[in-house]
Amino acid sequence: MTYRAPVRDQTFILRDVLNLEAYADLPGFEDAGIDTVEQVLEEGARFCEEVLAPLNAVGDKEGCHWSADHTVRTPKGFKQAFDKMVEAGWPALMADPAYGGQGLPAVVATAFQEMISAANMAFGMYPGLTAGAYAAIHTGGTDEQKALYLPKMGAAKWGGTMNLTEPQCGTDLGLLRTKAVPAGDGTYRISGQKIWISAGEHDLTENIVHLVLARIEGAPAGVKGISLFIVPKFLPDADGNPGERNKLACVGLEEKMGIHGNATCVMAYDEAKGWLLGEENAGLKLMFVMMNEARLGVGVQGLAQGEAAYQQAVGFARDRLQGRSLTGPKNADGPADPIIVHPDVRRMLMDSRAILEGGRAFMLWTSLHGDLARLSPDEAVREKANDYMGLMTPVVKAYLTDKGFKIASDSMQVHGGSGFTEHFPASQYLRDSRITLIYEGTNGIQALDLVGRKLAAKGGRAVMSFFTEIDAFVSENAADDALTPFVTGLKDVKDKLQDATMWLMQNGLADPDNAGAASTDYLHLFGLTALSYMWAKLAKAAHARIAAGDTDPFYANKLVVGRYFLERLLPDAGAHLTKLKTGASLLMTLPADAF
Amino acid sequence: MTYRAPVRDQTFILRDVLNLEAYADLPGFEDAGIDTVEQVLEEGARFCEEVLAPLNAVGDKEGCHWSADHTVRTPKGFKQAFDKMVEAGWPALMADPAYGGQGLPAVVATAFQEMISAANMAFGMYPGLTAGAYAAIHTGGTDEQKALYLPKMGAAKWGGTMNLTEPQCGTDLGLLRTKAVPAGDGTYRISGQKIWISAGEHDLTENIVHLVLARIEGAPAGVKGISLFIVPKFLPDADGNPGERNKLACVGLEEKMGIHGNATCVMAYDEAKGWLLGEENAGLKLMFVMMNEARLGVGVQGLAQGEAAYQQAVGFARDRLQGRSLTGPKNADGPADPIIVHPDVRRMLMDSRAILEGGRAFMLWTSLHGDLARLSPDEAVREKANDYMGLMTPVVKAYLTDKGFKIASDSMQVHGGSGFTEHFPASQYLRDSRITLIYEGTNGIQALDLVGRKLAAKGGRAVMSFFTEIDAFVSENAADDALTPFVTGLKDVKDKLQDATMWLMQNGLADPDNAGAASTDYLHLFGLTALSYMWAKLAKAAHARIAAGDTDPFYANKLVVGRYFLERLLPDAGAHLTKLKTGASLLMTLPADAF
Repeated sequence: MTYRAPVRDQTFILRDVLNLEAYADLPGFEDAGIDTVEQVLEEGARFCEEVLAPLNAVGDKEGCHWSADHTVRTPKGFKQAFDKMVEAGWPALMADPAYGGQGLPAVVATAFQEMISAANMAFGMYPGLTAGAYAAIHTGGTDEQKALYLPKMGAAKWGGTMNLTEPQCGTDLGLLRTKAVPAGDGTYRISGQKIWISAGEHDLTENIVHLVLARIEGAPAGVKGISLFIVPKFLPDADGNPGERNKLACVGLEEKMGIHGNATCVMAYDEAKGWLLGEENAGLKLMFVMMNEARLGVGVQGLAQGEAAYQQAVGFARDRLQGRSLTGPKNADGPADPIIVHPDVRRMLMDSRAILEGGRAFMLWTSLHGDLARLSPDEAVREKANDYMGLMTPVVKAYLTDKGFKIASDSMQVHGGSGFTEHFPASQYLRDSRITLIYEGTNGIQALDLVGRKLAAKGGRAVMSFFTEIDAFVSENAADDALTPFVTGLKDVKDKLQDATMWLMQNGLADPDNAGAASTDYLHLFGLTALSYMWAKLAKAAHARIAAGDTDPFYANKLVVGRYFLERLLPDAGAHLTKLKTGASLLMTLPADAF
Repeated sequence: MTYRAPVRDQTFILRDVLNLEAYADLPGFEDAGIDTVEQVLEEGARFCEEVLAPLNAVGDKEGCHWSADHTVRTPKGFKQAFDKMVEAGWPALMADPAYGGQGLPAVVATAFQEMISAANMAFGMYPGLTAGAYAAIHTGGTDEQKALYLPKMGAAKWGGTMNLTEPQCGTDLGLLRTKAVPAGDGTYRISGQKIWISAGEHDLTENIVHLVLARIEGAPAGVKGISLFIVPKFLPDADGNPGERNKLACVGLEEKMGIHGNATCVMAYDEAKGWLLGEENAGLKLMFVMMNEARLGVGVQGLAQGEAAYQQAVGFARDRLQGRSLTGPKNADGPADPIIVHPDVRRMLMDSRAILEGGRAFMLWTSLHGDLARLSPDEAVREKANDYMGLMTPVVKAYLTDKGFKIASDSMQVHGGSGFTEHFPASQYLRDSRITLIYEGTNGIQALDLVGRKLAAKGGRAVMSFFTEIDAFVSENAADDALTPFVTGLKDVKDKLQDATMWLMQNGLADPDNAGAASTDYLHLFGLTALSYMWAKLAKAAHARIAAGDTDPFYANKLVVGRYFLERLLPDAGAHLTKLKTGASLLMTLPADAF
């Protein structure tokens, strides 16, 4: 079985749960009627299934090739697939129509992003990083910069990258050393070394636009002295075409456990010519425009890799004949039953599916709020959507990647010994997905961002809105018997999350280490609450279809998976609450040298 | 930081918790006074740290080399290290003195096995599999077979393997096809293909003794027609030296995600000469002698890989300067604080340590029961120890490997982006440890063995003994205030396990799928109970030392980690109980094609 994009599930969420049609008055949405969207996704699915998925193992086995002339060759077939993608206009799906983009809603682009990240995550990172750099230039660039870069980058004719990390600084950007010296003509000369630069050099695009964090000579120490620069590989000439080679080079590739098809570069800047993007010393804020895009994108990758791995596990479990059902043969004429008859195999598949279907709704629901934050004419809607984007971003990133990796690991487990060999794709999913827990801020950093920054922002307004929204859903649906287990489960987990939030507000203030000690359990409790809310919405929509006489088993199956979520995944909520309330004291007792 | 064997922790467990000296009247134990044992372990530690650990990354990067002449070359340095190991007599540690072994207790050998599996798991599999084959011949061989093979294999001059799996059968050995034809002279001709044969071919020993499951012509179908054969690579000549080459060959190596230093072979037997081991058609029973040894060994590997990965994470967390403590700088003169100041980093380290220290006690405690089952003069002791070995084996295997992999993954997480590169050892630990959840019976199979076979055996006698033992510990120590949290935690989790056991006995009979559906949660609840019991014993021993005036911080630290276990790991018990009681119905609802 190869990858099949979950268009059916995506359109159900977009149509029946998020009610996409209700937003037809927003710019971009007028062209995004659900039938159009379905067509776009079907076409995207075909591209991902037929062009990208077959290259996934190729990229893993072959990897990228660095040469002493500082060029990087991507795996066989990547360039042709990239050209096809550009030609079909996929990268421009969400780009600004003012710069040649199609201007479709982010929520539609996210659905496509899931497919590309499932079919070939290493490949998908090339256009993905470009989109992040695009967003930063779109937000912070001058009109001239926008006119020069956005049309090319929006179409993925030029690539884009993020250059943050240096050997001595990853999370802690205050330690950054790369220098920018004013050249006197309004440009700067950038010098320094950057590491782990995804897509830093490759043969897919005619130019690569590096966004580089650097410190202008004489700038304040720490994070307040960091600026962001546009540093293209080839300096655009007067016509906006790639001209003279800039003084930067990929001096090596990182050997990694996974995503071999993506070039992870060590970049050397040696008085490279750069243009300031945004304000001096305000680079970090702009970098976070990219970073937030990227974090959501990584959450999508986690889910996507989980989906792809799950599909392989299902295929294996249906085909592999081994042993007999505990309740008597189910394939009496065959030598053995398919292993999908075994409850413990199904446990892994159902665990995965309950996360994937609930997580997909959560991802698209969050993405829709991104659209509302940008596009709604109603300020109250924009404000709430903006609050939600801040609050949900670390949860989408960390929760979906933690679970995506767990699903990849369970998928390997369903395969038994075959999964550990490189003849089956389980190993690649496990290895590729593992990076999603780390990059764009480790999941621990996400948890700290959630409890340390996002909860407290604006007096806790965002999380209070979320509680209010859930309360309203609970009371609106309390009388609907068909939804009782979903409403009860949601109310219960929301109460736990509220309890945890209160505990954090009191104890995190008294001792910030309490917040750090609680952060990961809090984030997981938050994830369970968000997915419970999504499952309640999914169940409501499925019930509505069934009540309207739709006999497609899709809806009845949806309710089975939802009830499974309540019975088998939600019980972890209590454990998270108990653990997070234990505070920091035992954690902090041992001196560092006693570990 | 390189690997440091945890001799201090091991000797604390052997001396203070298991009270090794109390068994001095048992054969083998008379020479195993605690001071001697400590010396042996110290020497073993030096060998593992200095000789094996430096070869771990070499084995991973280089892998094994197969040639068209069917030879396999192990990674550079493996042969020299193996020769040193044989010369030092390490493999003979536990071997029977009647055949030239040292006859030390299994519990001591297990401690050494932890070190070897931590320092270099792929290397350790070569002597490890030999020990399994040794055990099968020791149990089921004729006097002649024992005299011929045991001295050589006990010293690891000859290697040994287990040949079970074929392409169409792994877990389900009833599907096995390899044939054995009587040659008329008491020997057999073995023909068939075996896959995933660890250490099936290599350059470390002068001979390799394959134990091969095959079906004698005309034998009953299914598992009742399977016999076990001794099939040496070189047929022993009249003097017992390697003679004529047997008709068997390694026809290829498996490409795997990890344990690259161990040769995973496809073996072809083409009328190879073999000798029946044990009775005709009773091969499976004898194979389980090997298998049970091997399962315990795999549990040890899981723990060992976790320990090695944990040590690397600690080293990184102490050295890596990044960000500041939430409560103000702790390294004010440096550019940043070491990341070990962060509560969420400590959470991962403390989670790991609470499992490792409790798990080490559980592993050694179980291993001591192996000694008692073999050696105790008291039949009641032997019987109970035997019951325990049956009951605990799947728990040691599955719980310690699940957790070992989790620790390896957390260790990578502590490393951040560095962990995903192959410059740090985190990736190898993650990749190597992943196989332990799969081989020698997947962890799902272990869980099914526990609930389907081990619980019910002899009317549930084994698990009832375990409850009685815990009850006795609880009442003996109920009045000791210093132990209150440990005793309370133990009583609570034991009550939950007992509740789950009763639920299983009632509902598993009504519908066997309920047992399958509950199995993995039950196994984890069992693991938490076993570790709670171990932590109560560890705490009691540490308190006794402190009460006696010993001021070594080792003991106070032990209590901190133990209380952390109670606060931060034990809360999962309730979630496991809730989940397992939901039964099989939702799991079994969807038809296979709806996945």
